[in-house]
Amino acid sequence: MIRRCFQVAVRLGRHRVLPGVPQVLPRLNPTSAFGSSTDALVSRFCLKKTDLKDYALPNASWCPDMLTLYQEFLEKTKTDGWIKLPSFKSNRDHIQGLTLPFGLAVASDISDWRIFTRCIQVEGQGYEYVIFFHPSKKKSICLFQPGPYLEGAPGFAHGGSLAAMMDETFSKTAYLAGEGLFTVSLNIRFKNLIPVGSLAVLKVDVEKIEDQKVYMSCIAQSRDQQTVYAKCSGVFLQLQLEEESSQ
Amino acid sequence: MIRRCFQVAVRLGRHRVLPGVPQVLPRLNPTSAFGSSTDALVSRFCLKKTDLKDYALPNASWCPDMLTLYQEFLEKTKTDGWIKLPSFKSNRDHIQGLTLPFGLAVASDISDWRIFTRCIQVEGQGYEYVIFFHPSKKKSICLFQPGPYLEGAPGFAHGGSLAAMMDETFSKTAYLAGEGLFTVSLNIRFKNLIPVGSLAVLKVDVEKIEDQKVYMSCIAQSRDQQTVYAKCSGVFLQLQLEEESSQ
Repeated sequence: MIRRCFQVAVRLGRHRVLPGVPQVLPRLNPTSAFGSSTDALVSRFCLKKTDLKDYALPNASWCPDMLTLYQEFLEKTKTDGWIKLPSFKSNRDHIQGLTLPFGLAVASDISDWRIFTRCIQVEGQGYEYVIFFHPSKKKSICLFQPGPYLEGAPGFAHGGSLAAMMDETFSKTAYLAGEGLFTVSLNIRFKNLIPVGSLAVLKVDVEKIEDQKVYMSCIAQSRDQQTVYAKCSGVFLQLQLEEESSQ
Repeated sequence: MIRRCFQVAVRLGRHRVLPGVPQVLPRLNPTSAFGSSTDALVSRFCLKKTDLKDYALPNASWCPDMLTLYQEFLEKTKTDGWIKLPSFKSNRDHIQGLTLPFGLAVASDISDWRIFTRCIQVEGQGYEYVIFFHPSKKKSICLFQPGPYLEGAPGFAHGGSLAAMMDETFSKTAYLAGEGLFTVSLNIRFKNLIPVGSLAVLKVDVEKIEDQKVYMSCIAQSRDQQTVYAKCSGVFLQLQLEEESSQ
């Protein structure tokens, strides 16, 4: 059931919403479907008051490049419309009060979940990253510092760890810019290896939102932009999360 | 230097080896360049005697589907030419006695490295996987069970965790089938979500080896092949590892 539903959704993603398939979008409020304002989404996403730990804050493992650029963007949140996104332990914390559509839910007695990019708990060993988002420009910057548990070739980040970081940055951007919820495709070209412990800057742009899909591009490079680590395009499927009370 | 070298290598990957650029492949033994036999590579990779822990062995977290299919492929190692690949904590263990070419090395005082797909140490929480390789058919099967620390959407594996698993399966296949060392590109189309704790079967085929590149395809699906999770194509750059003594 779970699988069939997502297939329906993905198939739907190839066309405009057709009047003939209303069952595909149950309980959907037409006035907000794929039209929730970015401001409303950001406001819900960036909880003003929470006891949840935000992992996207500087710690002793951050390299000087990462710290400096973090401070620069933090300044821009005061003047240039950038927003620093919080990063909690699990996506469940990010979508409190909401559930996945289409009965996309799994029964489980597991209680300790983690979003993949926060899977390693010791500072500096795994993923260190922070994402800044610009609502009106629909673009994001992710400062990413891979630790020694993200290794592929000796001394360098695994290609898969960068792919996951790009997917995650796309994911947050797609959601806030246009309720993009599921990755449809990722096309990555790797250019250079990222040394473990150094900074990679990921720049994401929303290129267009069309046919229930959010199209994005990403370039990952060194801080001085002299070295391109990888380029990527990503497509996400728009689906609206449901209010928990409607379940 | 590190960065420039990889750029040179990648650029090289677009053409046949040209007589005019011999400096690109220093210390290369022409008789073995991109011609080391798969048998020799497998033999070096699958250490007969080692104290290293092999993480690609069943544990209490493996679901019944994973255990059953593991046993099936283990039987095939006795009769059908399949080989179970060991999986150590770090790629450094897999390439003992060898180093990366072109001075691709980083100085560091870090001692605790992990290959990304073995980054989470508690059984069942992160990546559970085992790769079987068939040398003469140049294909691989990866049995992959994502744990709750690999989550994306609540209850399902993060797209990036599957991307990384595909990249890693490509990586081992490319190396053993033809000394493919670095990911050049990954093109992934996601079809369905993988429920956390369930089995995904990744089938990898080497399509061709040409112009110093190994071209592969991968399909990830449920055990009964009724649900396709994702399809992926990957290109890896061939580069020969160097004997440590030649450094």
